[in-house]
Amino acid sequence: MFFKVKTSEEVLKIIEGFEPLGEERVPLNKSLGRRLSRDIISLEDLPGFYRSTMDGYAVRAKDTFGATEAQPALLEVAGEVMMGQAATMPVGAGLAIKISTGGMLPEGADGVVMVEYCHPLDEKTIEVSRAISPLENVIKPDDDIKKGSKVILKDRILRPQEVGIMAGLGLSQIPAYKIPRVAIISTGDEVIPVDQSPEPGQVRDINSYTLSAFCRQAGAEPIIIGLCADNFELLKDMVEKGLSKADTVWISGGSSVGVRDLTLKVFESLDKAELLVHGISISPGKPTIIARIGSRAIFGLPGHTASAMVVAAVFLTPFLSRLSGEENLSMRMYDQVAAELSRNIESASGREDYIRVKLKKRGKKLMAEPVFGKSGLISTLVDADGLLRVERNMEGLYQGQMVRVMAFNSIKGGFY
Amino acid sequence: MFFKVKTSEEVLKIIEGFEPLGEERVPLNKSLGRRLSRDIISLEDLPGFYRSTMDGYAVRAKDTFGATEAQPALLEVAGEVMMGQAATMPVGAGLAIKISTGGMLPEGADGVVMVEYCHPLDEKTIEVSRAISPLENVIKPDDDIKKGSKVILKDRILRPQEVGIMAGLGLSQIPAYKIPRVAIISTGDEVIPVDQSPEPGQVRDINSYTLSAFCRQAGAEPIIIGLCADNFELLKDMVEKGLSKADTVWISGGSSVGVRDLTLKVFESLDKAELLVHGISISPGKPTIIARIGSRAIFGLPGHTASAMVVAAVFLTPFLSRLSGEENLSMRMYDQVAAELSRNIESASGREDYIRVKLKKRGKKLMAEPVFGKSGLISTLVDADGLLRVERNMEGLYQGQMVRVMAFNSIKGGFY
Repeated sequence: MFFKVKTSEEVLKIIEGFEPLGEERVPLNKSLGRRLSRDIISLEDLPGFYRSTMDGYAVRAKDTFGATEAQPALLEVAGEVMMGQAATMPVGAGLAIKISTGGMLPEGADGVVMVEYCHPLDEKTIEVSRAISPLENVIKPDDDIKKGSKVILKDRILRPQEVGIMAGLGLSQIPAYKIPRVAIISTGDEVIPVDQSPEPGQVRDINSYTLSAFCRQAGAEPIIIGLCADNFELLKDMVEKGLSKADTVWISGGSSVGVRDLTLKVFESLDKAELLVHGISISPGKPTIIARIGSRAIFGLPGHTASAMVVAAVFLTPFLSRLSGEENLSMRMYDQVAAELSRNIESASGREDYIRVKLKKRGKKLMAEPVFGKSGLISTLVDADGLLRVERNMEGLYQGQMVRVMAFNSIKGGFY
Repeated sequence: MFFKVKTSEEVLKIIEGFEPLGEERVPLNKSLGRRLSRDIISLEDLPGFYRSTMDGYAVRAKDTFGATEAQPALLEVAGEVMMGQAATMPVGAGLAIKISTGGMLPEGADGVVMVEYCHPLDEKTIEVSRAISPLENVIKPDDDIKKGSKVILKDRILRPQEVGIMAGLGLSQIPAYKIPRVAIISTGDEVIPVDQSPEPGQVRDINSYTLSAFCRQAGAEPIIIGLCADNFELLKDMVEKGLSKADTVWISGGSSVGVRDLTLKVFESLDKAELLVHGISISPGKPTIIARIGSRAIFGLPGHTASAMVVAAVFLTPFLSRLSGEENLSMRMYDQVAAELSRNIESASGREDYIRVKLKKRGKKLMAEPVFGKSGLISTLVDADGLLRVERNMEGLYQGQMVRVMAFNSIKGGFY
């Protein structure tokens, strides 16, 4: 089996071999954060009419040519544009029609004089003290969006402004990649539900919680299948249940060789399963198993929460992105933060290391400070702001060196 | 009224004057992304027992002292620790008990020899070829978390690892700041619902969609009150409805002086309303109005979507953070990205400018490229990755200068 131990680059390639889940139509008001599965092409111009950007008077620009404070142009006020309506009369030579910001330009007018440069002489006449050029203070019908143009390209993850522009175009349903559904199974005879009190030798189920929160953060839908004892038949049943309900199955647990072998046996017993990865040459996270069943991946993750979370950050983030439509997976998947390393780090050559680090501001500099503590401890992750990757061919990193930290996403805000 | 025109620093101070909404108890599986309102203090040790970190044999360390491959120690195998259970027998002198990763150390044992260094001689005896020191390959009962210690501090925004550690401690409910509820009103005689086709002079309601998506992105709950015509009584009714349902009311619309005056009149007509801000010396976003009614803020936002979004990014992000417990508001609220400016930018001195920019990788450098287009156009926001702030006392920024860009949050992923 040892030939199945892969490097992280090989695992990313394997992950790229899985296909996106396909697309669905999503109501516009639920589309925030979704990835667009098709280009959005506008069926109309926006705003669709000549629109004033100022309060003032709609005029023929040439009627203002040469106007100055000393020699103002005199125009006759012929009416007012009501908001949300077309003007009832055209602007002929020597005429002006009152208009508000956002109003529709009357026929005949080709510009708007700001109210500041219009001085009423009497009820019917204004003095214009400044010339405007054609289209001044006006948005053209297709200035914002042209009919037939690509407004938003496929693969964009939708932000409030994209949601807004689709509202402006009257799109109430949008085409998006499906959200991955993830079946989560925690294994281990020692693992008990969170609402129970552990007896000696027992621990509460942490991984179901971290992994489902991780899924939510990544925009996927977790489906908790449950806790499973270290038993072949039970685990096989749960994995099959997971496969029937979700697009991928994640099993955590099995830090011991015995349990890892059990997970492996279950994988091998499944119809048409193909073992892709049996160990990854990274630390922590080495005892990771990946199998393929048709279009679906099953992951056997390390039992230590900290190790499982490193594997999640490094591989399951791009995997979920891939299922939801991402084309090119690479380390650029992450928020990376540049920081200065606070001390030397040693690393075994031939293995890729992921060091938990804290980011700390020192003056104007951002420092990356390794978090101490045994790698099995969950608390080290709570202290950490991200992971520092030490590449396989390196024997370490030096104090003072600039490094890139893969920042753990916090849903709101950032590091500054 | 002109004395109420404020700088952005003054507006941030005013926002800091509002109090957080208070706290509530949240089920653990809904706690991701919430801000903790109290320190979490552990009522127990984690893992709570001496736990093996390796597959191997639990022994007395001193029985292995001096053991080498040439001169192994001989130990009698007295049994096996079952996962999730206390060992049934203690480890006496010269004895070893088989144990898996995660298993509970038996009484008498103080370390674990990795299975790699244990060679069975017969069914009852092993040769140990390497000495261990006390506590080797063992996690102590309070190594991860000590009873009585502060596990997570108040104000932390919860990530998957924090959710996990609380699961480990058996906390099924957690204390968090309440989520702000935001009443959203779009005004304007020209604004129609998204599912209608505009007549000449009409535009669809974009702002309800951008602002509610903005709220969701910031972890707040939008409550859409509806569209409102430019009419005093109707607007007053809607604002009162908003105040009865939400913690803050946001009105967008009114780019014309007439509509702005209407919003202002409604604010002034409300019982106990106090006008705090009437204009902010920024561009875009100047015609912003803020009033206080008791503990609640009402915002009159510009009608242009692009301007409203700039005000949202600059002021409503910290405002929502404040309502949900943030203590110290400042520009550090944002994800800021360092980039090199691609061209000169001019700016009027005495006014703070927010320039929409695109972030582009050029080789190893990240470039900030200003987005062109009239400021009223929504499409400029779709092209933009963030905002570049040009401070009040600056007359511009230079090509090649390093700048900090306030990045628009995308829910997943980052800029690299």
